[in-house]
Parts: sequence; C-alpha cells; structure tokens
Amino acid sequence: MEFAFEVFASDGKARRARLTLPHGVVETPAFMPVGTLGAVKGLSPSDLEAAGASIMLSNLYHLSLRPGIEVIETLGGLHEFTGWQRPMLTDSGGYQVFSLANLRRVGVDGVTFRSHLDGAELRLTPESVVQAQWRIGVDIAMVLDECPPWPVTREAAAASLDRTHQWAIRSRQAWQGTGMSLFGILQGSTFPELRQRAAEQLSELDFGGYAIGGVSVGEPTRERRAVVELTAPLLPTGKPRYLMGVGTPRDIVHAVQQGVDLFDCVLPSRNARHGMLFTRHGLVRIKNARYREDSRPVDPDCSCPACRRVSRALLHHLMRSGELTGAVLATQHNVRYYLDFVMHLREAIASGTLGRVAASVAACYPEDSSFSESPATPDSTASIS
Amino acid sequence: MEFAFEVFASDGKARRARLTLPHGVVETPAFMPVGTLGAVKGLSPSDLEAAGASIMLSNLYHLSLRPGIEVIETLGGLHEFTGWQRPMLTDSGGYQVFSLANLRRVGVDGVTFRSHLDGAELRLTPESVVQAQWRIGVDIAMVLDECPPWPVTREAAAASLDRTHQWAIRSRQAWQGTGMSLFGILQGSTFPELRQRAAEQLSELDFGGYAIGGVSVGEPTRERRAVVELTAPLLPTGKPRYLMGVGTPRDIVHAVQQGVDLFDCVLPSRNARHGMLFTRHGLVRIKNARYREDSRPVDPDCSCPACRRVSRALLHHLMRSGELTGAVLATQHNVRYYLDFVMHLREAIASGTLGRVAASVAACYPEDSSFSESPATPDSTASIS
Repeated sequence: MEFAFEVFASDGKARRARLTLPHGVVETPAFMPVGTLGAVKGLSPSDLEAAGASIMLSNLYHLSLRPGIEVIETLGGLHEFTGWQRPMLTDSGGYQVFSLANLRRVGVDGVTFRSHLDGAELRLTPESVVQAQWRIGVDIAMVLDECPPWPVTREAAAASLDRTHQWAIRSRQAWQGTGMSLFGILQGSTFPELRQRAAEQLSELDFGGYAIGGVSVGEPTRERRAVVELTAPLLPTGKPRYLMGVGTPRDIVHAVQQGVDLFDCVLPSRNARHGMLFTRHGLVRIKNARYREDSRPVDPDCSCPACRRVSRALLHHLMRSGELTGAVLATQHNVRYYLDFVMHLREAIASGTLGRVAASVAACYPEDSSFSESPATPDSTASIS
Repeated sequence: MEFAFEVFASDGKARRARLTLPHGVVETPAFMPVGTLGAVKGLSPSDLEAAGASIMLSNLYHLSLRPGIEVIETLGGLHEFTGWQRPMLTDSGGYQVFSLANLRRVGVDGVTFRSHLDGAELRLTPESVVQAQWRIGVDIAMVLDECPPWPVTREAAAASLDRTHQWAIRSRQAWQGTGMSLFGILQGSTFPELRQRAAEQLSELDFGGYAIGGVSVGEPTRERRAVVELTAPLLPTGKPRYLMGVGTPRDIVHAVQQGVDLFDCVLPSRNARHGMLFTRHGLVRIKNARYREDSRPVDPDCSCPACRRVSRALLHHLMRSGELTGAVLATQHNVRYYLDFVMHLREAIASGTLGRVAASVAACYPEDSSFSESPATPDSTASIS
C-alpha cells in the first residue's frame, strides 16, 4: 500500500504513528527539514540522510521560479533533480505569494503576482498548483491557500477563508487520479469561530492529511498555541496533522501534545547560520566570548558530525570569522538536534512519558525569550531526558 | 623515525616519494588543500579526509590574528583545535604580511604591520614565527620571508633577498630542538641570478625541506615556469621541494616534471565557490546555461559526494541561486579532483608514463585562457588518462 497512516500508540492526545508514502516510511511525530530550493542550505542529500531525516520539505513557489517546473519534470522529477530519494513534501506557494511576491491580485480563480526575482508576472490557480506538484512527483502536495497577515480584521479573515475554502474544493477535484497525497490547509487567523468553521468544512473534503496554516506569521505565542489547541482535536483522527512553519522545541512538544504529527521550520538551519545552536541543555550562542577556549563539543550527547569531531572553540572561531565551514557544521548540528528531538518525542509517547519530557524542554528553553535575549546557559542543570 | 623523506621512483626529473611526519605519511607529489583559518572553506575535517587529503595547509598570519596563538596552544595545539589529525603545514605569514597587512615596516630584525582586521600593530621576527609554529604543534613550519611584488626592480629584489637570507639563518638557529620540520623559502623574483644565488645559499643551511616562494604574485606563466625550471634542480635532492601557491593542473604537472614534490593552492576551493569545476575532461563552468537540464554528474569518473549523488543540473541551479549547498558540493568536488589528480601523477611517475599524462592535461586545460575565458567543453574528446 503506497499511502497509509497508522496510529499505534498514544499519550494523552499525542499520537505515535507511521505514515507510508511512495518514497518511504515516515515515523511520526516527524520534523521535515526545509530545503526551499531543493536542498537544506549547506547540506547535501547525503548529509540530510545521515542526520536522520525521513522527509524533506521544498517550496513550489521557489522551484517554479527557478529552475521551473518544466526543467524538473524533464530531469525526471524532484527526487531525481535533488538527489533526495526519501519522501518529499512541497508547500503550495500560497504562503510565499503572500510574503515574498509583489503586486498580488487575488481573484476567485487564483492569484496573479510578480516574481520577487525578476518581476515576471505569474499566476497560480488551485488546479495549476496541484498539477505542478503532481508533475514533479512529490509524495505530499499542499493545496493553494490564502495566508492572511497577522493581525487582520475578522471580516478580511472571513472573506479570505471563504476563498481558501472554494480553492480547497477545486484542489480536491483536481487531485483525483494523481499518484500523490494532497493535504488541505486550515486558515482563519486567530478567530476561534473561523478556525472551527474551517476545520469542519475541510474535514468533509476527505484530504490525505490536514495542515494548520496561517500561523508563524507574527502572532503572539499564546495565540498560536490557542489555535493549535482548538483545531488539532477537530481534525480527522485517521489522517496526519501538520502544523506549518512551527517552531521552537517548546512549540513542537506543545503541538505534539495536542495531537499534531508533522512539522517543518527554518529555525534549525537559519539559526545555525547565525551561530544559535540547539542542545539538550538549552540554546548555545556560539559566538559568545565564553566559548572562545571551550574544548567541549557543542552538545556532548549529540553524535552529529560537528559534535563528534570539533570543539565549541573551533565553531566559535569559524562563526566569528564568517567561515563557510562554521555554517555547515552548525547546520549539521541543528538539523540533527531537531531530528533527534522528535525521535525522543516518539519514544516518550510510546512509553507514556511525554509530560515529563515537555517539562524538561520547558526548563531548557525558557518561553520565547531564549531566541532573542541572553542565552540559556549550556551548563544549566536542566536537561531534556 | 618521525621525519623521513624517501624517493623510491622517478620519471625524468619527477620523483615519487614518501614524506613521513609526526602526524602521518604523505605520499608525494602531494597537494595540500588550503585551510586558511583552520578549515577548507565549506569542508569539515571529515570531508577533507574523505576527499583523500593527507596534509592540510593553514596560515599562521590569519591564525595569529584570530583566534591567536595562545588560544590554540591552550586548546592543545592546531590539530586538537581544528579536528584535523593528519599532518599540517603552516605558512609563515610572510606572504600575507606583504599582501594583506597595512603599514608594513620591514627592518633587519623583522616586520611590523597592522592587522587587516582591526588595525592592531603586530610584529613578526624570524624567531617569533618559528616559535609560534612550534607552540601550535605543526608538522611542517615555514621560515619568515619577504615576498616582493611582481614586477620589482633587480635592486629591490636583491636587497629583499639579502634580508630573507639573514632571516633564514636566524630561523634555522631558532628551529634547533623543536619537534617539527622547518622549510626554507627561495625568493629572488624572476631574476635568474638571484634565484640561483638563493638556491645555493639556502641549500647550505640544511633545512627539512625547500620551498620555491615568490611566485603566483602576478607574473606571467612563462616567467613562473622559468623560475621552477631553473631552481628545482638546484635544490638538495634528498629533501622535499615545495612550490608555494601553485597552481592549475597544468602548472602542477609542469612542476612535477621539474622535480617538485609538494603544492598548495586556493584554486580548487575558490573556483568552486564561483562555479568553476575541474574535471578529467576540462573545466566546467557550471553556471553556464548549457548545464540547465544536464542530468549527468559533473565528472562521470569522479567519486566525490557531488558526483556520486547529484547532477550538473542541480549544481547549476544551486550555484545560480547562490545556495550554500552548491558551494559545498562544488568544493567537495574540486578538492577531490585535485587530490585524485596528484594521485594520478604519482601512479604515472611509478609507471614511467608522466609525459603522456602531461600531454593529456595540456589538451584538457588550454594554457591559462581556460581560467578566464570560454570554457573547455566537457564533451571534448580529450581526457586525462
């Protein structure tokens, strides 16, 4: 069976499941590293495999602009093109059209916009987006949606949601007969009644899976959490649930506790390039002077290529000097950290200890502040276990 | 025996030898990838090992400024600091002082200059340079020399050479009792009689090895080749000969034919970051439109991580998009190419076929022009074999 989703353990609302896709099996909860243009910045497909990734996310918007869907199709599809042979999910481009592109005109039929690269006018419709993903052979496709900014008025959010719903119906139709899974996307901003309506309407369409979209667009953490708490339980239990663009370790464990199965986020790779490293003992800002002569690995319990081989002192030196190798090693570490982290969550669900893990994550990653202010000390006694 | 140099085959003036150093054995002719700040840009120590490097070059000038000799010493030396456990050679900093630093004042005793990073005033003497390299535990240290620009008057070159020779004598003295090899450096610009004098004077000092310096500073190829042809045969036969900062595959095979054993150059790594890839069939400028839909590996006969896994089309896409992964894969390829190339030269010397190899290198890499003008076609019938 090419597509299957089997929940085989739970801990509260959290689920331990297995998602079977054409290019392989994804144990969930799972984290999907972001390879916007077909590769996680700084990593080769082999590096990503070695880090333990079972599925990669790529962006249809970026790939459509460069190198173009036709080129990828000519080359045998996205797997052949990228060299990544495990499952692949592509974002529909809706989010990027609303965050990156210029001169958007949203109509009933779809969205017209100008490329952020060269100003060329492009058009996406629900049908063209499903078709493009099918042509390049992804395992999981996402529907075209409209992602409103935050904050937004209730009226604008409702109108946008209606459009997104009409697009979802058309996407569902266009999906028939393709050899891929298609996920619907829940919008509704931070308005509970809109989110609730969206969940009900979307559930009726019987998609391959359901994504919570429209978050990580600037809303406060508590609003984002409220959306997840409200909507995750309303989504069909027999299908995978995906929280788009989220988040910190603490965000992820919270969402897993609400029954979310899939995540993607640029945080591990982007923060790596800025010298912000995730560890089992909290955040390490490697450029901090305290690491100048620190001969320990970034995380003694990590077996990524960086931690197996080099010291905090070397990473400190390379990152301060702006050396490419620093960014590469830091990315290898952070991506590995996230993949180890969700593996740890899977084990915790299976053994019924997720609550304890959530508490230790909270101790190591103080709410939000840790990503913008003073670093958590890596020598703290807290540890995720 | 910690230090040994054994020549065990030859083909004309070319030598096939083995250099034994405290951290391992280097089969020569050998190419030393350049890790200016302690790492080849984009590669981890494991990547460099996997590419087949047996020795890495690092720059004392850069390391002295950042992180500083004391930090490296505190952390247990350059091998501990970088995670590179095989032999390590450091350049003395002479070349960098004359190419990067500001407000140089060269005196009999040494050179005073301002850091190109923060303007701090620093001073190098022949003794301090030997001592710094000894403190960080390199396998091969280089003497402090003065590297004149090109062109330079005969008078200035002669005065500079005298100073360099006095420094060599003092370096030789300071070297006594350290657990490393020390190489002298031959200067004299492109003046045959100065080069000849330098070779004679330097040979008398009985260094661990002899480097031809003062080349790759802008002189025409034929002048550089003339220096190599003149000086290589004048250097002691029982010691390794090192041509500094050279060069193209064609430069290297030429120098090997004159009896040179060691090389370092930023060409493979720097050109990789600009999308210029070395192959057995000539140069591939991967950003060229012709590679947009080319599903072949960069070099079908290469087994680097890039060629084993991804296509020219992906590298074209990643390099055009400025993606980090493109630079990483291209660097892995080019460094591997250079290391495979010198391995091929070693085999050719052993089997007496170096002349044939040199001819095929010349066919694939048209003189100089190939690095600045139109690309050699990768589909040419020429091939290095």
